[in-house]
Amino acid sequence: MSRFYSYRNAALIPYTPGEQPKVLNVTKLNTNECPFPPSEKALAFAAAHTRPLNLYPELQCIDVRSKLAELHGIDADNIVLGNGSDELLNFAFLAFCDDRRGVAFPNISYGFYPVYADLNHVPALEIPLREDFSVAPEDYFGLGRTIFLANPNAPTGMALTPAQIETILKANPDDVVVVDEAYVDFGGESCIPLIKSYDNLLVIQTFSKSRSMAGARLGFAAGDKELIRDLNTIKFSINPYNINSMTLALGLGVLEDEETTRSNCRTIMENRAYTVAELEKLGFTVLPSCANFVFAASGKIGGQELYLRLKERGVLIRHFDKPGISAYNRITIGTREQMDILLKNIREILEGTV
Amino acid sequence: MSRFYSYRNAALIPYTPGEQPKVLNVTKLNTNECPFPPSEKALAFAAAHTRPLNLYPELQCIDVRSKLAELHGIDADNIVLGNGSDELLNFAFLAFCDDRRGVAFPNISYGFYPVYADLNHVPALEIPLREDFSVAPEDYFGLGRTIFLANPNAPTGMALTPAQIETILKANPDDVVVVDEAYVDFGGESCIPLIKSYDNLLVIQTFSKSRSMAGARLGFAAGDKELIRDLNTIKFSINPYNINSMTLALGLGVLEDEETTRSNCRTIMENRAYTVAELEKLGFTVLPSCANFVFAASGKIGGQELYLRLKERGVLIRHFDKPGISAYNRITIGTREQMDILLKNIREILEGTV
Repeated sequence: MSRFYSYRNAALIPYTPGEQPKVLNVTKLNTNECPFPPSEKALAFAAAHTRPLNLYPELQCIDVRSKLAELHGIDADNIVLGNGSDELLNFAFLAFCDDRRGVAFPNISYGFYPVYADLNHVPALEIPLREDFSVAPEDYFGLGRTIFLANPNAPTGMALTPAQIETILKANPDDVVVVDEAYVDFGGESCIPLIKSYDNLLVIQTFSKSRSMAGARLGFAAGDKELIRDLNTIKFSINPYNINSMTLALGLGVLEDEETTRSNCRTIMENRAYTVAELEKLGFTVLPSCANFVFAASGKIGGQELYLRLKERGVLIRHFDKPGISAYNRITIGTREQMDILLKNIREILEGTV
Repeated sequence: MSRFYSYRNAALIPYTPGEQPKVLNVTKLNTNECPFPPSEKALAFAAAHTRPLNLYPELQCIDVRSKLAELHGIDADNIVLGNGSDELLNFAFLAFCDDRRGVAFPNISYGFYPVYADLNHVPALEIPLREDFSVAPEDYFGLGRTIFLANPNAPTGMALTPAQIETILKANPDDVVVVDEAYVDFGGESCIPLIKSYDNLLVIQTFSKSRSMAGARLGFAAGDKELIRDLNTIKFSINPYNINSMTLALGLGVLEDEETTRSNCRTIMENRAYTVAELEKLGFTVLPSCANFVFAASGKIGGQELYLRLKERGVLIRHFDKPGISAYNRITIGTREQMDILLKNIREILEGTV
């Protein structure tokens, strides 16, 4: 750090994103992207509806918010957009956490939660997953802390039901429960309908996974209007024009073509079932996934070694060198062709090692 | 605010952006946008070079950083990109200011500086402009605070020379001086060449004004590599994928067509000279502007009244209801046609009032 750097952030360790190779000559199964681009219909809509780029974006993002509201049966005032869902997670830390009201999240979950806690100087309680890697709702009852839950969780892929989340909401009526539904469209069930009943529920979703827009950056938060107003206070104190006009137009275009989104999700779920079955044939332990990835451990080769050996062969998956999960790798579910390349390479590596 | 909102931000008052009407049937001279869209050449380049949108953006933004480095004769490691320059200003507050090291900026300047100070709980010293609305360098000597200077300043449009900025850098060797050059391309002189000599200089620029990309959101900061590393620590702790792939491609496209940028700036400076002369004929006091706007006061009609009367007529300019400048309005310099609409309406309003 420079000699000018604030003491307040001296211990801050940034998030480590998955590798994003500049040249795309790899089988990229490491950052949970959708293998399918936005549809031609969505792209054509965006091209026809982008506000002139020399002008600032429309500040209220009203078209995308209204369309999302319509799809979810809520009001536009229940929604705020972010430059990806990460930005909204940080807004939620700024709005609903502080040195007096700490935060709680699973010890194995999205790696950005502890970074946001550090950045915002919020005391964090990391709650261990159960032995089967599940989140036990009762572990989150009455903590007196803001709670962040990825549901489905990452990197496990395992999901709680809305009824289970509801027990957490009821047991923490005076604290916000943030449900991060980045992966909900691949077999989970959204808690957005619950925002009408619980003023302490904030649901965050992203267009990066099921909606093929990782490169365009768009996320949204849904919750009680009061919560959304708080997040807007933060947004307008950081970056009022946080969503660019191209992304707003593309987001609306993608929402106008929900059939493609649903069809892509079905394909990915089919490819997931296929991949799980093939990995199990190869002796892998695979956690039950409701996400567009699987978390899998081979009994024959260590997680890190498999990751490195696949990387040598041009196949990228994600390894987390962390106690309790270092035998596992997180493998994004791509096209059937990508999964066959992965499986072929795993078979060859395993044949070489046993 | 909701009952869950953090006490830390209870007093936070967000920035108030200029009006951004959804329907564009107005003469929009209120938020300092460029009246010209990105060139066909830039747009075609962007269309041909956008990374697939289902994949995350290239994390290092290396192409745009390299091109900027080439244009400014510095290294790519001297540059970090932001989702607009506002995001980078906040990163600078997070990196270089805290409760021990406060901040100083002019009392009449970009309205976001005090918001960032509040958001980041940084004590702020607002230093009055001199009577002629100028920033006096010696007022910023040896303050023991991080300094933020918009140069040219907003909303006055008045600029310091790099030699004057250099006196501030020399007088504050242990504090960062952030020079916010949003408007530098319209007659100011950039301090970027000084980053080689001063490790305490951070220069921030935007693609929103001279480069016609307000709607695409792109800014950059240039400084010593250590400062940039600090800003990257913050960026990767907030939103590593802060710039989307469409904006990266368009930014590169615009940089590949610097001739259009220069030509647009020349046109705007010509239109500024014309507008100033016409306003002065109408009895306005107009501050000497090096920006794509002028700050002007009529002796015949109050600033707020003129703003409101023009708005009724479909002409948007910006009024700041603030002591010392309430007689003035900030008028963006647009096309010659837009300026003639403005001037015609001002003439009609003045004829009606005198």
